[in-house]
Amino acid sequence: MGTALRFDIQAQQGEARAGVLNTRRGPIETPVFMPVGTAGTVKGIRFEELESADLDAKIILGNTYHLWLRPGIEVIKAAGGLHRFIGWERALLTDSGGFQVWSLGALRKISEEGTQFRSHVDGSLRFLSPEVSMEVQAALGSDIVMVFDECAPGQASYEETERSMNLTARWAKRSKSAFERLQTEGADTGHVDAEGLSGEQALFGIIQGASHVDLRRTSLEHTVNIGFDGYAIGGLSVGEEKPMMFEVIEDIAPRMPKAAPRYLMGVGTPEDLVEAVARGVDMFDCVLPTRNGRTGQAFTSRGKLNIKNAQWVNDSRPLDESCPCSVCRRHSRAYLRHLYTSGEMLASTLLTHHNLAFFLDTMRAVRQSIRSADFPKFRLEFTERLCANGE
Amino acid sequence: MGTALRFDIQAQQGEARAGVLNTRRGPIETPVFMPVGTAGTVKGIRFEELESADLDAKIILGNTYHLWLRPGIEVIKAAGGLHRFIGWERALLTDSGGFQVWSLGALRKISEEGTQFRSHVDGSLRFLSPEVSMEVQAALGSDIVMVFDECAPGQASYEETERSMNLTARWAKRSKSAFERLQTEGADTGHVDAEGLSGEQALFGIIQGASHVDLRRTSLEHTVNIGFDGYAIGGLSVGEEKPMMFEVIEDIAPRMPKAAPRYLMGVGTPEDLVEAVARGVDMFDCVLPTRNGRTGQAFTSRGKLNIKNAQWVNDSRPLDESCPCSVCRRHSRAYLRHLYTSGEMLASTLLTHHNLAFFLDTMRAVRQSIRSADFPKFRLEFTERLCANGE
Repeated sequence: MGTALRFDIQAQQGEARAGVLNTRRGPIETPVFMPVGTAGTVKGIRFEELESADLDAKIILGNTYHLWLRPGIEVIKAAGGLHRFIGWERALLTDSGGFQVWSLGALRKISEEGTQFRSHVDGSLRFLSPEVSMEVQAALGSDIVMVFDECAPGQASYEETERSMNLTARWAKRSKSAFERLQTEGADTGHVDAEGLSGEQALFGIIQGASHVDLRRTSLEHTVNIGFDGYAIGGLSVGEEKPMMFEVIEDIAPRMPKAAPRYLMGVGTPEDLVEAVARGVDMFDCVLPTRNGRTGQAFTSRGKLNIKNAQWVNDSRPLDESCPCSVCRRHSRAYLRHLYTSGEMLASTLLTHHNLAFFLDTMRAVRQSIRSADFPKFRLEFTERLCANGE
Repeated sequence: MGTALRFDIQAQQGEARAGVLNTRRGPIETPVFMPVGTAGTVKGIRFEELESADLDAKIILGNTYHLWLRPGIEVIKAAGGLHRFIGWERALLTDSGGFQVWSLGALRKISEEGTQFRSHVDGSLRFLSPEVSMEVQAALGSDIVMVFDECAPGQASYEETERSMNLTARWAKRSKSAFERLQTEGADTGHVDAEGLSGEQALFGIIQGASHVDLRRTSLEHTVNIGFDGYAIGGLSVGEEKPMMFEVIEDIAPRMPKAAPRYLMGVGTPEDLVEAVARGVDMFDCVLPTRNGRTGQAFTSRGKLNIKNAQWVNDSRPLDESCPCSVCRRHSRAYLRHLYTSGEMLASTLLTHHNLAFFLDTMRAVRQSIRSADFPKFRLEFTERLCANGE
């Protein structure tokens, strides 16, 4: 371990860091936002658009849970891994499936060994464990693998959270052992020889502990002691209050290993991203730009905008007058509203494209401002502009 | 009239013609296929893709009925016409709404004056007539306007068809009068000054007469006597048998004015297009590539292919091994099947893209073969290949 990924910090201002994450698929500038490609597609968007200068996403996320259930690992293995199956040569990070099976609630049963649940696709009984998750992620051949963890609800009691956090630590150890065995066996379908790197998959640990800061610190200690290529903060944005989320990030992120990438899982709005960067986070993923795009909500530099509103019926302005994306260059709010109210799928495609452009542009601006030592000014102006509420 | 459009035939082989339709939006090589953009969007496809070298659609169709009801003419007028509203600067043809209201069946009432019907959007009572259709199409500012006609079912009796065909002739005269008045008044929102052309909208007449060839000939005579920029064959592919359709085309197309474009409305499969070109047709529109794309059917050089079929689960081949489109260059049948069975909208987008590429490529090959005097050979080989049934 340790040679699968190289992280170079190139500028720092306060806790905010700008750097490069060198993966076997090439360099990725950080802080970075990863669009979510649940079932092997970032919903509504073609890969050509993700690669275009407009978006230029360097890494996307795949969901182990969804891909394991459909199309299934045999299909993806037969294709030669997830990259080849979906036709994407840039970096891929896969989650462990832990969060998805945890989200099933009453439909799953967690034991020391792992989690039993019923497939939402065909109702079959399935079992996910650290070992199974590592096997599936090796078959997917993702460039960054996440350990199999257990999540605790945002309002979980101290005792419940402690029990869960300790289970996560034991699962993290089992994940790492299984992962190392699989790397040795050559089970990784995505192996790419990379200059200065081992070409192996990278493995990230996950810090749990809900909103209990001392448990978070313990979880961090357990995770660092096991040792990973990068470290994630999991179990946030799962129902806790926002000030609580930032309290955890503010306490934990700066204590995480400085030389490794820090990944805040499943967060968040554009302002959340900027605020988390200010506290030392390097990587993000979130379904907001894609999911909200499909339900008619645009993220703009002046706040959120609901394209369904009658006020846009004759509005010839683009979604965001300061956005250079292909949707804003070409289409009016009036047209996008018409597409949405007519149930045309192009509405989802165009809103998703713009939202991803806004998230990815925001991260580009964040990186630039850290490099030019202007991050505090950027952060202030960005947040103030967002209050204009789409107008 | 007569200066709104210039049609130059540059090569002819048998009845098949290859030429250029000079419109105020630029030249369009014929025979040409027009993708259908019902509600101001070719479903599932971005305009950037339609303009790309892959598809390079020079003209698309808009539906007067749909756009009149939603978003409504006031919205499109406020935007400065349909081109500006949707963000498309290439040529647009609009139908008259006649076929759509006729398709409503029991929900509409046809009189000498026009057709009364209930809007499928809000249930309101609406009235469409030659005059209203011309006003709506002037407000849309399409480059080619179709007269308001009545259709007769494929199996209509002689008397019923004769009555309908005569009504169509009277409506054609009223359409032309209203159209000329609107051009004089400058009601056309899409006016573009064009070298060597008047810059006005062009108006096409429609030949009706169901499957009764002598009524078709009479309808042709009526229509030519009124005088239009181009002539369409309407009321085919509406339930009649395919040999009957070709019998009508074979008889009527060669009798249509040689110096004007001939447009076969709403037809058809790739083999229909090639067979109609062989009988002298220059222009086509059809929902098949887009609609069937959304239901999982691909058109390929070796026939139709249903992407849902389990036989493709591990098939790494593209939809069509001889197709150069971006979908076939990148994605496997296995991946497309996974997207479709997972209900991912990208399945519709990618299948629609490929289908349009196949239709538009076929027309490119048709044009090339006429110019190089190879059309009969192309026609034979194309049709033989289609029998392979997607394999």
